[in-house]
Amino acid sequence: MRAEASRSVPESAGKPRSKRERAAHVEDLSQEARLRSLLKILREINQARDLRSLLTMLTSETTATLGVERSTIFLYDPARKELWSFVAEGISDQIWFDAKKGMAGHVFESRRSLIVNDVNNDPHFNPAIDRKTGFVTRSALTVPIINTRGETVGVFQAVNKIGGEFDSVDAEFLEAVAGEAAVTIENVRLYELRRRMFESLVTALADSIEARDPLTAGHSVSVMRYAKGIAAAMDLPPDVQRAVEYAALLHDYGKIGVPDDVLRKPGPLDAHETDLMRSHVEHTARILSAIEFEEGLRMVPQFAAEHHERLDGHGYPAGLKIPQITLGGRIIAVADVFEALTSQRHYRQPMTPENAFMALTAESGKSFDSGVVEALARHLAKEGILTEEFSQAALRSIRGQS
Amino acid sequence: MRAEASRSVPESAGKPRSKRERAAHVEDLSQEARLRSLLKILREINQARDLRSLLTMLTSETTATLGVERSTIFLYDPARKELWSFVAEGISDQIWFDAKKGMAGHVFESRRSLIVNDVNNDPHFNPAIDRKTGFVTRSALTVPIINTRGETVGVFQAVNKIGGEFDSVDAEFLEAVAGEAAVTIENVRLYELRRRMFESLVTALADSIEARDPLTAGHSVSVMRYAKGIAAAMDLPPDVQRAVEYAALLHDYGKIGVPDDVLRKPGPLDAHETDLMRSHVEHTARILSAIEFEEGLRMVPQFAAEHHERLDGHGYPAGLKIPQITLGGRIIAVADVFEALTSQRHYRQPMTPENAFMALTAESGKSFDSGVVEALARHLAKEGILTEEFSQAALRSIRGQS
Repeated sequence: MRAEASRSVPESAGKPRSKRERAAHVEDLSQEARLRSLLKILREINQARDLRSLLTMLTSETTATLGVERSTIFLYDPARKELWSFVAEGISDQIWFDAKKGMAGHVFESRRSLIVNDVNNDPHFNPAIDRKTGFVTRSALTVPIINTRGETVGVFQAVNKIGGEFDSVDAEFLEAVAGEAAVTIENVRLYELRRRMFESLVTALADSIEARDPLTAGHSVSVMRYAKGIAAAMDLPPDVQRAVEYAALLHDYGKIGVPDDVLRKPGPLDAHETDLMRSHVEHTARILSAIEFEEGLRMVPQFAAEHHERLDGHGYPAGLKIPQITLGGRIIAVADVFEALTSQRHYRQPMTPENAFMALTAESGKSFDSGVVEALARHLAKEGILTEEFSQAALRSIRGQS
Repeated sequence: MRAEASRSVPESAGKPRSKRERAAHVEDLSQEARLRSLLKILREINQARDLRSLLTMLTSETTATLGVERSTIFLYDPARKELWSFVAEGISDQIWFDAKKGMAGHVFESRRSLIVNDVNNDPHFNPAIDRKTGFVTRSALTVPIINTRGETVGVFQAVNKIGGEFDSVDAEFLEAVAGEAAVTIENVRLYELRRRMFESLVTALADSIEARDPLTAGHSVSVMRYAKGIAAAMDLPPDVQRAVEYAALLHDYGKIGVPDDVLRKPGPLDAHETDLMRSHVEHTARILSAIEFEEGLRMVPQFAAEHHERLDGHGYPAGLKIPQITLGGRIIAVADVFEALTSQRHYRQPMTPENAFMALTAESGKSFDSGVVEALARHLAKEGILTEEFSQAALRSIRGQS
């Protein structure tokens, strides 16, 4: 127990010894409720799919079990040095305040639980938040949320005990629940950091491969943006959207296996040079196949390997036809061509978005998937790259063809 | 409740109604114990730093709270289609068995809890395991461990209830604890998968950069192995060892910015070519700096950026001296030179490990950190690359110099 009794609670505030039987009965009921609540928390914890739904479950269990008006989880934002309400029952707006202020700030700083049964007699109480929310705080139990590395990441607060006072047994319960919250917050954070590390590495290497040819700098990131836009416009499942995104970023990585003089040649390539240039797709496929992608990203190597395949079988390296090419491969093909046409190359000037899109339209249903080309039109209109009118006319023209 | 009562338990096996008072007292004690136990689990869960210590805590809490002889967590191995004892109280060897066999197999398949109060009258009981371990199973409560995606990943078993029978309240308790185990197993697994994804990507790109020059193929992986060996021989903290490992794998990635004709030139380089070649260190530093490494890996870019610095200030790019060069940088420098000397190059034949090591020794304390060179000697002797006698003589010679 690390509860710190507030000076506003007299030492004798516990249930009187003389009423032992009644107290024991109340205690039993309360113990039964606490046990039910913890059993429920542990049972449901593996059904919550995200941090918010899990922490929301913890606050509502706390409110019911401790018999309080509401519970709130405040998280610490190191950049702003403030606490903010990640889950606040009964309040829709986020509350932000100085991490040194109020009962929450005191608990955050001292890392010890705090019981306050009359906020008006407590020096830590900060009435500013009540004034902002219109809620009236009478009593509060506040405990720190401390992660596995001993860092305080937030506080858990239960407010206004109904028909009674907070005691050390309540504090013990809330500390246990806060422990669970800490683990969950930590897991999500670590997982997210690892995702960002992977993502930044992928981006760094997409950039680095393009550093060999200044004219194609930024190509992969641009293709990734178009491909992401198409996948979103087609409303694909989140996992597929992410896989398309990574595959688009990495689709040209195999150019690392193409000699400088072919890669940077300012004129048209001869037959041998064309073969070398085209071999980048196989290099990409080989390199990406060595990566142990996590479950949702397993298709990345195949999506990337198919970005030069064409619906009519005239693409490379495999000359696949419509049903054999993955949707991801078809999306990156369209994004890649649109990006290339609208960019400067050694041998030609960039096209306008309108002309590039018309060039794609002409091949829609032959080289390119018309559904993907339509999704690109919707994405470009949404981004203001094509006008709504142009996009509508283009869509009509694609549909007229098919 | 999803407990499935075994046919071996008569319907009337519960506590008799006529002895209500005594039963209520036992029930209260048990409730108190369960509440204490769950509070403890929730409080301690954020102090457990790894899966094994956490699951061990869950089994010992279960054993104490349910009053049983031992508890075991079996995990499912999809490759072998077997269940195995990840945490088994009282047993040091791992137990592996067919995931369709026994009470554990039945629960794994049916995904429902199973109470068996007399194993000899139960069709699911598999006596083979007892014969193997010498333990005598009389009764068992077995519950499935089901993760957030609804997959059964294992089973949790409590064996031999002392002085009583397992009931549905016990099952409810163990199901809650199994829920917690499921979340923890899932988190560790996801985190581990993401680590492997990152690691395989790093390896794939280290390989890909070397694909440009067949003579240096495998250089980065070899340097990584030597650097890892040195870091282990120096007993550095695990985080630093991992950072050294990644930095060693990526130290030459900046060669992506060096033209083919310089990289593959079969003879000595002129001054301009030397500058281009040396620029790979700055490319490495720039590219790696763009990666959001997780906390323990923050030093990777700096370690990699210092692999051509030398203690006497005659290295590049910065010409740093002893106190300014990180230990990681000094380790990779030694590993890199040892690997290069023992490998074929465009302009010379490989040296023997003995000659390469003597060359390092000659520069120990001047170019190279003598503590690092000593650690390399210990690593090479351990791996059998140098004989123990040679290594000892070399160590004496290094110590004689300094």
